[in-house]
Amino acid sequence: MDDALLTETNPLPAAFDERLAAQLGFLIEVDRLKTVLRQSPLAAARRRENDAEHSWHLALMVILLAEYADEPIDVGRTMRLVVVHDLVEIYAGDTPLYDQEGALTQAAREQEAAGRLFGLLPDDQAGLLRELWDEFEARRTPEARFAKAMDRLQPMLLNWMARGGTWRTPGVTALDVRTRTSSVGEASATLGEVAKSIIDEGERQGWIRPAP
Amino acid sequence: MDDALLTETNPLPAAFDERLAAQLGFLIEVDRLKTVLRQSPLAAARRRENDAEHSWHLALMVILLAEYADEPIDVGRTMRLVVVHDLVEIYAGDTPLYDQEGALTQAAREQEAAGRLFGLLPDDQAGLLRELWDEFEARRTPEARFAKAMDRLQPMLLNWMARGGTWRTPGVTALDVRTRTSSVGEASATLGEVAKSIIDEGERQGWIRPAP
Repeated sequence: MDDALLTETNPLPAAFDERLAAQLGFLIEVDRLKTVLRQSPLAAARRRENDAEHSWHLALMVILLAEYADEPIDVGRTMRLVVVHDLVEIYAGDTPLYDQEGALTQAAREQEAAGRLFGLLPDDQAGLLRELWDEFEARRTPEARFAKAMDRLQPMLLNWMARGGTWRTPGVTALDVRTRTSSVGEASATLGEVAKSIIDEGERQGWIRPAP
Repeated sequence: MDDALLTETNPLPAAFDERLAAQLGFLIEVDRLKTVLRQSPLAAARRRENDAEHSWHLALMVILLAEYADEPIDVGRTMRLVVVHDLVEIYAGDTPLYDQEGALTQAAREQEAAGRLFGLLPDDQAGLLRELWDEFEARRTPEARFAKAMDRLQPMLLNWMARGGTWRTPGVTALDVRTRTSSVGEASATLGEVAKSIIDEGERQGWIRPAP
């Protein structure tokens, strides 16, 4: 990854004060999220999804599925969590759900990326994004648990439409899929049942290897 | 555009009640927003932006730039507006900002698309999305005005990074750009000044044709 910021290649007009210049520079730098590819195949086209599209999809899911949260959630707060949750992947890259090796270094890579990326913002807003990201990761609030549930449920819908998708990752079985998506049921019993039905049926169809 | 819904090619398990099945079918159908291309070039890659990425970008801008709104805004409500604002383009297509011919039929095409797309949802949620979209379009609330300002400011940042981008559309001059982006200043004097500086400097650099 190139060390230069995008705005260094074409600096904005010098007319803005320091705070505004930092915010606009950050908002240009995050354009990179559109280039971070996930493993999930789109349902509507023959290509992989990127993180920005994925984050938008989760935000819309929050609006429409919030009624199934087992604990009441603040929809606006939950949307903030999903809009921000993958930003660190701009510098840390996407770690696929079934990548055991990548998972070992993921936390360290993402911590470094968070410092670098959020550090482009004025201190108060760097703190704000850091707080949202930490909340998402820790899953200690109902909003964070629901946001994580959306993050797990969304690729299941895409895998279903692809009749396999990342479920076909070598070595992965229905047991792995159930384990890695258990967070759906931790936020919503109803959506946990959705996940269960999709996995059960995917296994029956032969799109997921049988559990050992 | 194909008349079949995406889920018709691969129906979800029959286990879900009518409401949930409608919601999940809609959430799969909207995957198509990731295939609706805008004219704007990305800052981070050599390709055009799609509507889903664009909508995510606006949501993040709302979080970070809300402090510049001239009237207080509800950030969560404004995020809902931007997440939903381009959905009708799934069936109506993107109408470029400088496409005068497309603009003539845009309203009718988008009304039809809204009926068709939102109609996939349970009635209450179809009404909710319709209300959000109408609010965005009418620009009668501070939230809608700020959402529209983000929708105009974001492509200016991309055009700046591309040293022209859609500003180079044949026939377009700095006068057109100023006219079509005036909504930025209607929501925020500070961000209106940002838009002005970017256009003035873009014109000086030769990235926008001089105003006649």
